[in-house]
Amino acid sequence: MELLKQRIRKDGKIKDGHIIKVDGFLNHQIDIALLSEIGKEFKRLFGKENITKVITIEASGIAVACLTAQHFNVPIVFAKKSESKNIDGDVYKTTVTSYTRGKDYTVILEKRFLTPQDRILIIDDILATGKAQRGLLDISRQAGATVVGIGIVIEKGFQGGGDRLREAGYNVQSLAIIDSMENQTVSFRE
Amino acid sequence: MELLKQRIRKDGKIKDGHIIKVDGFLNHQIDIALLSEIGKEFKRLFGKENITKVITIEASGIAVACLTAQHFNVPIVFAKKSESKNIDGDVYKTTVTSYTRGKDYTVILEKRFLTPQDRILIIDDILATGKAQRGLLDISRQAGATVVGIGIVIEKGFQGGGDRLREAGYNVQSLAIIDSMENQTVSFRE
Repeated sequence: MELLKQRIRKDGKIKDGHIIKVDGFLNHQIDIALLSEIGKEFKRLFGKENITKVITIEASGIAVACLTAQHFNVPIVFAKKSESKNIDGDVYKTTVTSYTRGKDYTVILEKRFLTPQDRILIIDDILATGKAQRGLLDISRQAGATVVGIGIVIEKGFQGGGDRLREAGYNVQSLAIIDSMENQTVSFRE
Repeated sequence: MELLKQRIRKDGKIKDGHIIKVDGFLNHQIDIALLSEIGKEFKRLFGKENITKVITIEASGIAVACLTAQHFNVPIVFAKKSESKNIDGDVYKTTVTSYTRGKDYTVILEKRFLTPQDRILIIDDILATGKAQRGLLDISRQAGATVVGIGIVIEKGFQGGGDRLREAGYNVQSLAIIDSMENQTVSFRE
């Protein structure tokens, strides 16, 4: 998606060679107009899949998931980190390792929000090692739901998570795949 | 907002007399069509305020903030809980006590995303004691920005947080104010 790549080149900040900060438009401050275009692009890519639900993990996936689900006329469900008094016991649970935060956390999703009839589109802002997406795949598997695709805004191709998911048979569509960030320059996969 | 009140009556679940679970449509599974109507209503209420930015706190405020900001053509910024390796040191910080979770947490927002020129609309899904909203007010004050309004989907009027903010001079607009939840029945303020 050319508009997105231009924005990454303009506003993305490379840190430590492995982390790219896109928090000026994607996951801290959010450019709603850009996300709406991103949602349209996911609709173009997955529009024929009879999707019934968009799922993501809090927090930074929620904005992209909402602006995508709008184009599909389906609800979103976001998996929650850790437990609160406000969550029923009847939940799916899985463990996710955060690359950025360097620790494990539990994510939960209430069972009544996913059924075996659901055809799921997993949406996330960033795919690096794929741990967060595998957490959502695990929850979908527990629910007996069908994952019809994984839509990612920015894939860090050099970390391999996206390609491993593709090799496992998933339809992973990333709107920008970064293959390297050497010398403070972002190179995208063709 | 009648559509919202009907939905709360239909799908809200009262727990322990003080907590109402609205996670079937507002803050776990999210009904995007309802949130888009909610966004339109906030546009009607705050449309003349020349708002430049919508702010909220992760995670459950993000969806409402996005679907509201869309009607104003402005970005959102969400304050983040705790710190990650991916956050610069140059942040506003404040402490918020969560009523639901029963603990304090630090929220941060990068300084470059709020300026003294900003005219801010604070958006959140639930207002109970008002602690989360006061955290966002504190951050806005640190930034020297002007808070022109606070838009809330569901206010738990019996906890008093909304009225204390109104007494302090803020323009708080809640789309549904619950005055009591006695005998498993929700009563709305007229």
